[in-house]
Amino acid sequence: MRSDFPGLVTKDGAPWHYLDTAATAQKPRAVIEAMSRALGQDYATVHRGVYSRSADMTLAYENARRTIASLIGGGEDEIVFTRGATEAINLVAKSWGKANLKSGDRILLSQLEHHSNIVPWQMLAQEVGAHIDVVPLTSDHQIDLDAAEAMLTEQHKLVAFGHVSNVLGGVLDAKRAADLAHKVGAKLLLDGCQAVAHMPVDVAALDCDFYVFSAHKLYGPTGIGALWARSEILLEMPAWEGGGAMIDRVTFEKTTYASGPQRFEAGTPAITEAIAFAAATHYVQSVGLGAMHEAEGELVARLRRELTAMNDVTVYGPEASAGIVSFTIDGIHPHDLGTILDEANVAIRAGHHCAQPLMDYLGVPATARASFGLYSTQEDVTALLEGIARTRRIFGKGI
Amino acid sequence: MRSDFPGLVTKDGAPWHYLDTAATAQKPRAVIEAMSRALGQDYATVHRGVYSRSADMTLAYENARRTIASLIGGGEDEIVFTRGATEAINLVAKSWGKANLKSGDRILLSQLEHHSNIVPWQMLAQEVGAHIDVVPLTSDHQIDLDAAEAMLTEQHKLVAFGHVSNVLGGVLDAKRAADLAHKVGAKLLLDGCQAVAHMPVDVAALDCDFYVFSAHKLYGPTGIGALWARSEILLEMPAWEGGGAMIDRVTFEKTTYASGPQRFEAGTPAITEAIAFAAATHYVQSVGLGAMHEAEGELVARLRRELTAMNDVTVYGPEASAGIVSFTIDGIHPHDLGTILDEANVAIRAGHHCAQPLMDYLGVPATARASFGLYSTQEDVTALLEGIARTRRIFGKGI
Repeated sequence: MRSDFPGLVTKDGAPWHYLDTAATAQKPRAVIEAMSRALGQDYATVHRGVYSRSADMTLAYENARRTIASLIGGGEDEIVFTRGATEAINLVAKSWGKANLKSGDRILLSQLEHHSNIVPWQMLAQEVGAHIDVVPLTSDHQIDLDAAEAMLTEQHKLVAFGHVSNVLGGVLDAKRAADLAHKVGAKLLLDGCQAVAHMPVDVAALDCDFYVFSAHKLYGPTGIGALWARSEILLEMPAWEGGGAMIDRVTFEKTTYASGPQRFEAGTPAITEAIAFAAATHYVQSVGLGAMHEAEGELVARLRRELTAMNDVTVYGPEASAGIVSFTIDGIHPHDLGTILDEANVAIRAGHHCAQPLMDYLGVPATARASFGLYSTQEDVTALLEGIARTRRIFGKGI
Repeated sequence: MRSDFPGLVTKDGAPWHYLDTAATAQKPRAVIEAMSRALGQDYATVHRGVYSRSADMTLAYENARRTIASLIGGGEDEIVFTRGATEAINLVAKSWGKANLKSGDRILLSQLEHHSNIVPWQMLAQEVGAHIDVVPLTSDHQIDLDAAEAMLTEQHKLVAFGHVSNVLGGVLDAKRAADLAHKVGAKLLLDGCQAVAHMPVDVAALDCDFYVFSAHKLYGPTGIGALWARSEILLEMPAWEGGGAMIDRVTFEKTTYASGPQRFEAGTPAITEAIAFAAATHYVQSVGLGAMHEAEGELVARLRRELTAMNDVTVYGPEASAGIVSFTIDGIHPHDLGTILDEANVAIRAGHHCAQPLMDYLGVPATARASFGLYSTQEDVTALLEGIARTRRIFGKGI
């Protein structure tokens, strides 16, 4: 399968042990070729042309919406294409949030959220006078749903949690979170960035209200992502960005807006990105998300086991992780580890992973994070472990 | 030059007479290949990786910013990558506009604006209680700057005009517009979508305050565009979308934001799109915008001359047009014309062109629009004229 991914080779033609898939996934040839065709022989605008190629492109664009909806069990009228998951969350905050939250209302987040699932809510809270409550973590660094249950009140209008932690890989019991939220009349938004690429997701079974994810973490292109919102919620959400394609009728006296997802897609959309996003989805579906989850789980289990056996290593997060392992080594800064690993063609992420409140909670400035994708192999894990051993030697530490 | 563009051929291998470049431009191979490389062997995230390929990608991304800035004579610290021109205008409205306009303030637009340069201001005006004034057009359908001068007051905080009309191709005297705006203390925003791809643009010489454009109309990819804002204005603009990469430090108590363009680029950016955007800019610069403007001007002149000679044709807009000719034929709906032309591999646009208030002003529901690009030829014009003749025959009209 690695041969499908031109990015998994170094400049010198050596295998690249890419363990930063949680930051962004490498792209299979099918995606790159879909993008090239869409930019080349198939290229035209959508929705507005009277010529046949534009009609074909419009079909392809709307088919892409259907494909993305099918990935998570949503309806095609429930998918809005956004610039990415971050913009999707901002859209919910600035449209639904501003229309539905008022002074004194409360938003429930957790200690492990990515900045993109914190800052938009802080901005909203500041604008409308709402308050943010933060659910603590369990001892194995998962969102503590017992604590959430105790914290939730009738004032809570929204619960926004990561479906899978981008730092720790822990998988939320999303159905229970939905039940807890709904019991007090709140909506549940799930940040699905790290979930959709690693396990089967069905928004109906999860019973959430909003689900967001980015294409580039799902083996697709940059510049596009998706918001799924329950249709009855989406229909009521006020327009956010104004422009072409999202309107019904414009006059200087009064402008009326389109209904459905188009109301939130002002301007020429990310046409070729949507088509390549669909190609990525087809690729992932052909491999099978269940099979991917299982294969990545084996890599996680081995890496956690080997790291835990080292005296001076701290491994964070729960045993069962969706493709992510975060750790620190006493006396070796994660950045130094990352730099030395890079020399051996091993790429990990070192830093706060856009989750500074979680770093504060864990009491570290940064962690090293290895994350897996469908192309990851035992050789990648071996190369990482050898790189860690080499780093220890450089730092004058024994094994 | 046509051979650089794989999109200019029909499915059957015949030449495609693509006269809808004002909607979106076809892409040269250089752009498609830059996109493929960036998605393939060069792919990595930006700003955050500790490994070398991510550092290389960060350099490429920031180099792209420098290239786009150089196209319009701006500084690299003045370019924000957005999803497109529409989002760029929304960003200005929702960040600068909301911070600087208050109840009773006024915004000056013109009758010929694209919906993307109307609706965001209507939304802003409604939110803050501002008023919108509309500059009428001259007899040759250009923004009447004498009228604008008479209308402008100290209450006006913003003037927002299309630099080149997307329907008519008329080129604004932007420097005079800037002088008029600045005389009353207002800022000038120019929608440059139809200008940057057709003529040299220098924001310093124009003396505007904001300049927006989309990559896909400049022979680049979809999913990306740029906002240029004068640095002292950009520095003062409040953050808009929250998320990763736009922050300085996040805690649940208080979040501080990055300075510079990054403050407005929340989340993983459109990395490969920025790189392909730069490739498009290099391509256009290698052809030369002055030469393009001249070549397109010849096609415009011939088409206007031939159309004007027909008794039942109305041609809109000024003689000197930046690559765009809008017209109607008595008794033939533009959509019917577009459909019949399509059968002869000629692609034009028929409709309101996202400028309904201009259609109302012209007293037509729609126009036919032919628009040229750097790959357009006299053969394209000939094919269009032949197609018009054929349409007349089908409709039982003489020449």
